[in-house]
Amino acid sequence: MIIDLRSDTVTKPTKGMLEAMMEAKVGDDVFREDNTVNELENRLAEMFGKSDALFFPSGTMANQTAIKLNTNPGEQIICDKYAHIYNYESGGVSFNSGVSCKLIDGNRGMFNHEQVIDAINPEAYYYSKSSLVEIENTTNKGGGACWDFDEIKKIKKVCDDNQLRFHLDGARIWNALVTKNECPKQYGEQFDTISVCLSKGLGCPIGSVLIGNLDIMKDALRIRKIFGGNMRQVGYLAAAGLYALDNNIERLVDDHKKAKEIGEELKRLNKIKIVEEIETNIIVFELNNDVNEQQFVQNLADKNIYIISMGSGKLRMVTHLDYTNTMHEKLISTIKTL
Amino acid sequence: MIIDLRSDTVTKPTKGMLEAMMEAKVGDDVFREDNTVNELENRLAEMFGKSDALFFPSGTMANQTAIKLNTNPGEQIICDKYAHIYNYESGGVSFNSGVSCKLIDGNRGMFNHEQVIDAINPEAYYYSKSSLVEIENTTNKGGGACWDFDEIKKIKKVCDDNQLRFHLDGARIWNALVTKNECPKQYGEQFDTISVCLSKGLGCPIGSVLIGNLDIMKDALRIRKIFGGNMRQVGYLAAAGLYALDNNIERLVDDHKKAKEIGEELKRLNKIKIVEEIETNIIVFELNNDVNEQQFVQNLADKNIYIISMGSGKLRMVTHLDYTNTMHEKLISTIKTL
Amino acid sequence: MIIDLRSDTVTKPTKGMLEAMMEAKVGDDVFREDNTVNELENRLAEMFGKSDALFFPSGTMANQTAIKLNTNPGEQIICDKYAHIYNYESGGVSFNSGVSCKLIDGNRGMFNHEQVIDAINPEAYYYSKSSLVEIENTTNKGGGACWDFDEIKKIKKVCDDNQLRFHLDGARIWNALVTKNECPKQYGEQFDTISVCLSKGLGCPIGSVLIGNLDIMKDALRIRKIFGGNMRQVGYLAAAGLYALDNNIERLVDDHKKAKEIGEELKRLNKIKIVEEIETNIIVFELNNDVNEQQFVQNLADKNIYIISMGSGKLRMVTHLDYTNTMHEKLISTIKTL
Amino acid sequence: MIIDLRSDTVTKPTKGMLEAMMEAKVGDDVFREDNTVNELENRLAEMFGKSDALFFPSGTMANQTAIKLNTNPGEQIICDKYAHIYNYESGGVSFNSGVSCKLIDGNRGMFNHEQVIDAINPEAYYYSKSSLVEIENTTNKGGGACWDFDEIKKIKKVCDDNQLRFHLDGARIWNALVTKNECPKQYGEQFDTISVCLSKGLGCPIGSVLIGNLDIMKDALRIRKIFGGNMRQVGYLAAAGLYALDNNIERLVDDHKKAKEIGEELKRLNKIKIVEEIETNIIVFELNNDVNEQQFVQNLADKNIYIISMGSGKLRMVTHLDYTNTMHEKLISTIKTL
Repeated sequence: MIIDLRSDTVTKPTKGMLEAMMEAKVGDDVFREDNTVNELENRLAEMFGKSDALFFPSGTMANQTAIKLNTNPGEQIICDKYAHIYNYESGGVSFNSGVSCKLIDGNRGMFNHEQVIDAINPEAYYYSKSSLVEIENTTNKGGGACWDFDEIKKIKKVCDDNQLRFHLDGARIWNALVTKNECPKQYGEQFDTISVCLSKGLGCPIGSVLIGNLDIMKDALRIRKIFGGNMRQVGYLAAAGLYALDNNIERLVDDHKKAKEIGEELKRLNKIKIVEEIETNIIVFELNNDVNEQQFVQNLADKNIYIISMGSGKLRMVTHLDYTNTMHEKLISTIKTL
Repeated sequence: MIIDLRSDTVTKPTKGMLEAMMEAKVGDDVFREDNTVNELENRLAEMFGKSDALFFPSGTMANQTAIKLNTNPGEQIICDKYAHIYNYESGGVSFNSGVSCKLIDGNRGMFNHEQVIDAINPEAYYYSKSSLVEIENTTNKGGGACWDFDEIKKIKKVCDDNQLRFHLDGARIWNALVTKNECPKQYGEQFDTISVCLSKGLGCPIGSVLIGNLDIMKDALRIRKIFGGNMRQVGYLAAAGLYALDNNIERLVDDHKKAKEIGEELKRLNKIKIVEEIETNIIVFELNNDVNEQQFVQNLADKNIYIISMGSGKLRMVTHLDYTNTMHEKLISTIKTL
Repeated sequence: MIIDLRSDTVTKPTKGMLEAMMEAKVGDDVFREDNTVNELENRLAEMFGKSDALFFPSGTMANQTAIKLNTNPGEQIICDKYAHIYNYESGGVSFNSGVSCKLIDGNRGMFNHEQVIDAINPEAYYYSKSSLVEIENTTNKGGGACWDFDEIKKIKKVCDDNQLRFHLDGARIWNALVTKNECPKQYGEQFDTISVCLSKGLGCPIGSVLIGNLDIMKDALRIRKIFGGNMRQVGYLAAAGLYALDNNIERLVDDHKKAKEIGEELKRLNKIKIVEEIETNIIVFELNNDVNEQQFVQNLADKNIYIISMGSGKLRMVTHLDYTNTMHEKLISTIKTL
Repeated sequence: MIIDLRSDTVTKPTKGMLEAMMEAKVGDDVFREDNTVNELENRLAEMFGKSDALFFPSGTMANQTAIKLNTNPGEQIICDKYAHIYNYESGGVSFNSGVSCKLIDGNRGMFNHEQVIDAINPEAYYYSKSSLVEIENTTNKGGGACWDFDEIKKIKKVCDDNQLRFHLDGARIWNALVTKNECPKQYGEQFDTISVCLSKGLGCPIGSVLIGNLDIMKDALRIRKIFGGNMRQVGYLAAAGLYALDNNIERLVDDHKKAKEIGEELKRLNKIKIVEEIETNIIVFELNNDVNEQQFVQNLADKNIYIISMGSGKLRMVTHLDYTNTMHEKLISTIKTL
């Protein structure tokens, strides 16, 4: 038994999802004739109360397209220093859109509206023009932290007052919705564009969707084509997404419960300096200075338990659909022995 | 019975291919742990005699990545006026790589090495620097025409003499290989990078592969990530590719035979001015000036036969895996009645 | 005595111009406090009936800025195959703006409105979006040819009907105005943006100006800064421009007269196959096939007469402010001896 | 008498410089035939011990060209949070080169080699690739602070160990050289490219020069052309540069002495919280919290003394060539009365 807690992206489709995929009605999506992908796009647009949605092969492409739709070359995105778009998308915002990031020194990947106000550049022509605020919910590098919705509304107001667009990287928005008992339409009201991922907590093999109103989304298809994200019989992937929306959202509470139980157990260990607050399915912790990080990770790997280092002395575990009760029992008892 | 001859991209996986997909061993390809995609990439690299290959969600992304790998911003690609990269990739070469095209006025999408020499810009700094020659085999807008391999070798020599890279858009290379009795390694020897498509003649739902040596391909993974072409459990798509390489190449002769038979039949029609030479699976023809093109297409559509207009008075039919013998009989008899 | 007819850019300021430069009132233009440049910008805006103008260190930068202001990445410019922006700006349109050119096969660098209609791409998302038409008046590679103003108005109508912007590369617009007895305001009415050059026929050492209405020009200052075209005490250069507007426009008739006289003389030579029609200050001619081009140019150079080859067997002479009557006599008599 | 201490860019050429300009031998630099600019470029290349140099219309363009020469799209520059290229070049690094900045939280615009090591991204393909370290000497936003040369050598070693290029924004390098008694060749040995400004402390109206070895500089001319920085009879500007190198470097000690005297006087004021250390010609100070900044600046303006706010409660004065002894006496006595 291998316990892989490196990421919630390692899941494989369940039997039910695989059957849904294989029975999908497909067509050539380059001609926009794949009804399954059309159904998925319509359903997500409606869920979030927007007039348009578009399927993408990855969350990176959904985010990169959103950034292109919301900015012009030379402009600046205001985001957290932990932002996925800044840290883990290979410098794509500058390559693809010719824009840069103004990083806010936030808390667990989150910041407040006053920090946004401070981050807006003056209007003089020798400054880069601030044009977009971007947040992630839940935060990845911030350890699955969830934003306070009131703060989001305040930031939206700052955006409106300063003619800034507002994008949500919702790679793990489902975890936030379930934990905080929020609904997608709330988010649809605050953001210009929202990317949601089907292949993390929801368990699909491939796919993200970008959601927004048609006035902003009208060039999304063109940008996706330019990046090469147009695919043919994409309904096989979209069918997994529809299945996941029906079956795999509510069950995220189980991932969160397990994550908290792991966290409680880790807190008891002498070797561990701190376990960050656990709000969803990500556990971030730091070892005591005298514990060798690489060895710690290797010891677990020797027991077929895989976790990853995030750099700066932080380690990460992520619970997910393929992390079973049996694995959980084994992990908990293993932690006790560390 | 619907006869869809608009493109060979409209095919849906056969039962055998779908089973191969369903049984695929998958992993998270972002961590490079999907063995099925690794197997497909290795197999294609070996087929073409190169040291590296990478899977892409589309031929557009494989081409766009090749262009980025082979050029720097401000430089120029020498290609035919019919080139897919110039005409049908949304201006991507300028958006993604900051380069432009110098178009050669070729014949059915093909040109000769002397035209390449003429197209190379002088070295002065106020000219764009010529850095890449690109050809398509078979040519799409050129009606499935196949390049003379000796001419390719002469162009390669011009490239070597002038420090130009050489890229093959092999979206339909399989059709050329089968028709001309050529082997992939021949092509591997002439080109720096080759993109091949799995979802046209070969019948896969999704997927292209870029092939080249490691010295050029070393940044391909990074560029694919920047475009957002990294996917997770991509083995489902790669399994279809492996199945197609085993089962769907040789059978292309059947598509070509049918295409020629359709052509013969079309030539007999008074309404038709010219049927271009048919070398593979694409039939391009022009109506007499007194025949209304839109009406002609609509008449066929009313009979559940779909073809497309290519602009400039040209109509196109493409035979493929899902175009059965029964459909062929029906089409031939329908043409006789036009 | 050296007779340099390679280009009208080789002129040096006259004594009067140099005095005007020396006495210029200057300030720091980065703070927009140089009154001389402000005066020049205002004067040109007014001349062409537009609300804004901006000084640039070169015509290339004025054009590149205009293209950026009038397009978005991935879009396409419709222009002649001879266009300076396509041929002689180092691939800048793709580097700076991520756009490409759709070349019209015109006559002496000029085309008609029907060719523009044909060049507009269909709206489908896989085509590059047509967004700008660009013309040059007079045409450089076209041998100083002047556009028919009625054709310009027809093209403007096509632009309006298809939501295309319209840019004039007016590097030698002064020559056209003088020859055709046209006025700047005519041009201001037809174009969104106009670049005019002060350092060709007008004899300034450095400088071009981009002219347009504020709604389009509002980001011009920012784009100029991004390219690094902001300069400090730029009034020294602007003073030359003001002097040239006062003193050097009308006298262009003299350059044109001399050019025509040279042309008449060249036509008499057996060695010369054709002398293109001469409308302004540029003479383009081709040698008979049996005459060695390089040797012909070298023979003249040995007599201290410099002309240049344009490629494709064409040779060019350009008359200008520093080409005196004495030089003209010498040249005419030399030609007789060739 | 107006005392303008907003920047050292507000200077106007002295009589001697203006005469040198007007007597300059010029030519068409687009053909590389302007001997005065050639002389200036050669002289600076030699001063810094490099094999090539190129004149630019602004320091921004010299920096932007250096960044393009030293990076590829998608890569990252390591620099201080105060860096001019990040803060005051309109987002140009992303617009022109498609790169982003990784900001170090330095001290007065300066950092150490260990901070550079920490800022280098891991090699994984989803990180932006670190490829260039950039520093400014003296630092502008850091208040004219001078780098410790030993630290520069340590950073150079880190660059060599990690295949990073090293660029110096030497907009005010002359001030550092004079203060620290250093020589240009020292700097030439450490950096791949160096931009120096002729129009700040040195008093020229326009001009910067980029210096480096030919292997890196070979495309500089092409990049400058793409930005539109090629100019015609540029010798007028280059002549000012030559004059400045002969006459205006040593005298910077006088600017520095005055700056320190102003600083001493400011320190005595109750209204002022802190005066930052003054090493060269820039004085940065902060008012007490109960003093209104705008009013303070306006009070001085009413006395014809101009200074600027830098944001974040900091005010700046800069001494320069046009700030005379008489002005200095007047300023000192005015400060006493505040």
